[in-house]
Amino acid sequence: MILLYSDDYIGEGRVVLAGRRADHVREVHRAAPGDTLRVGLMNGKMGTGVVMNVTADRIEMDVTLTQAPPAPLPVTLLLAMPRPKGFRRIIQCATTMGVKRIALFGAYRVEKSYWKSPWLAPDELRRQMVLGVEQARDTVLPEITLHPLFKPFMEDDVDALARGARRLVAHPGAEECYPASLTGPLALAIGPEGGFTDYELAMLVEHGFERVTLGDRILRTEQVVPVLLGRVNFG
Amino acid sequence: MILLYSDDYIGEGRVVLAGRRADHVREVHRAAPGDTLRVGLMNGKMGTGVVMNVTADRIEMDVTLTQAPPAPLPVTLLLAMPRPKGFRRIIQCATTMGVKRIALFGAYRVEKSYWKSPWLAPDELRRQMVLGVEQARDTVLPEITLHPLFKPFMEDDVDALARGARRLVAHPGAEECYPASLTGPLALAIGPEGGFTDYELAMLVEHGFERVTLGDRILRTEQVVPVLLGRVNFG
Repeated sequence: MILLYSDDYIGEGRVVLAGRRADHVREVHRAAPGDTLRVGLMNGKMGTGVVMNVTADRIEMDVTLTQAPPAPLPVTLLLAMPRPKGFRRIIQCATTMGVKRIALFGAYRVEKSYWKSPWLAPDELRRQMVLGVEQARDTVLPEITLHPLFKPFMEDDVDALARGARRLVAHPGAEECYPASLTGPLALAIGPEGGFTDYELAMLVEHGFERVTLGDRILRTEQVVPVLLGRVNFG
Repeated sequence: MILLYSDDYIGEGRVVLAGRRADHVREVHRAAPGDTLRVGLMNGKMGTGVVMNVTADRIEMDVTLTQAPPAPLPVTLLLAMPRPKGFRRIIQCATTMGVKRIALFGAYRVEKSYWKSPWLAPDELRRQMVLGVEQARDTVLPEITLHPLFKPFMEDDVDALARGARRLVAHPGAEECYPASLTGPLALAIGPEGGFTDYELAMLVEHGFERVTLGDRILRTEQVVPVLLGRVNFG
């Protein structure tokens, strides 16, 4: 799906694409005048675009937008700031799976250097989220907030972020299993690769989070995110 | 967890590590004599190792192996050969999640060049699987077989691979949803990024595969694998 912006419109139902999206339409879709492509307006409806004109750097299309984007996943994802190596894939995955609210937080076992990652620049974050929603055929980007300090995050922010939601924290040592199937609203907390400290876990429990395990096998954060989200009822 | 090989033994219960594993124990675990580490013998039991001696290039340990590795996931994964870009992560993910049988097959929308990927070299495949089982604290590597041609794969191999297993094929257009919770034995087929052709789907159905969807959102293969495996009962 090609994501459109209000800036792309040059008239009623007529858009012009340039840059990455024009290259993609030319090279991957190999679009020619008359072809129909799936399109969606950023944070708006989805529909079809008929290619009217293709030049070396521009694609002109007539678009009709009638369809609502897919329902969001009723999950607020509270994620200990991941290593830069997996960061973009994790954000893309959560976005593709329909999460609309992501809070990245610091913890004792989150290296401070992670907060200097170039992937946290607003343009970069936005790029990953755009790739994620395009993959999903969605149009609504998540909101991401950054909370480098654990204690203020828990004391000041977490209750507002998780208001009205069932709160679960993935913890390999927990006695309860992560439920096989869940309906929202949910707030799912995932710790750093080395796990939460006892102090952090106690604070999460104090704020209403139930400890749940995914079993004996220790998964990477990149795997935990789709496994947790994949059990949330998608309708 | 540190994976041991029978070659590592220099005497009854005494092993010597060198290379990557010695570096890891020195730099990540920062192990000193007297420290206890979690270890497992390749395809065998798991237990503890007490560091006896640390030199610039060798670690000597006394090991005691008493614990069985975690139960395998009762899934045979039939996977259209993935793009080289995601290949290693997918193999590591399936391995970490406990799959012991992976068949990589060709299909109309699998580019032929994928079969020339350097990641298919036996040493490379083994390296990814070792990383996967170490992450999971497991000791048993999966078996991987390669089936570049779809029709012979279906006609000659798939019934043996999926014998006695419930057979499901992930297909975005299917009417049935992928079950919220499953018990094995299962054979799960995942198509290429562009999907199966109608001919291929018909052949899968003819061989007993039920078409199931994960919903409207189109996920990358890297996300489909943990979502499908994550709903299989882990005890």
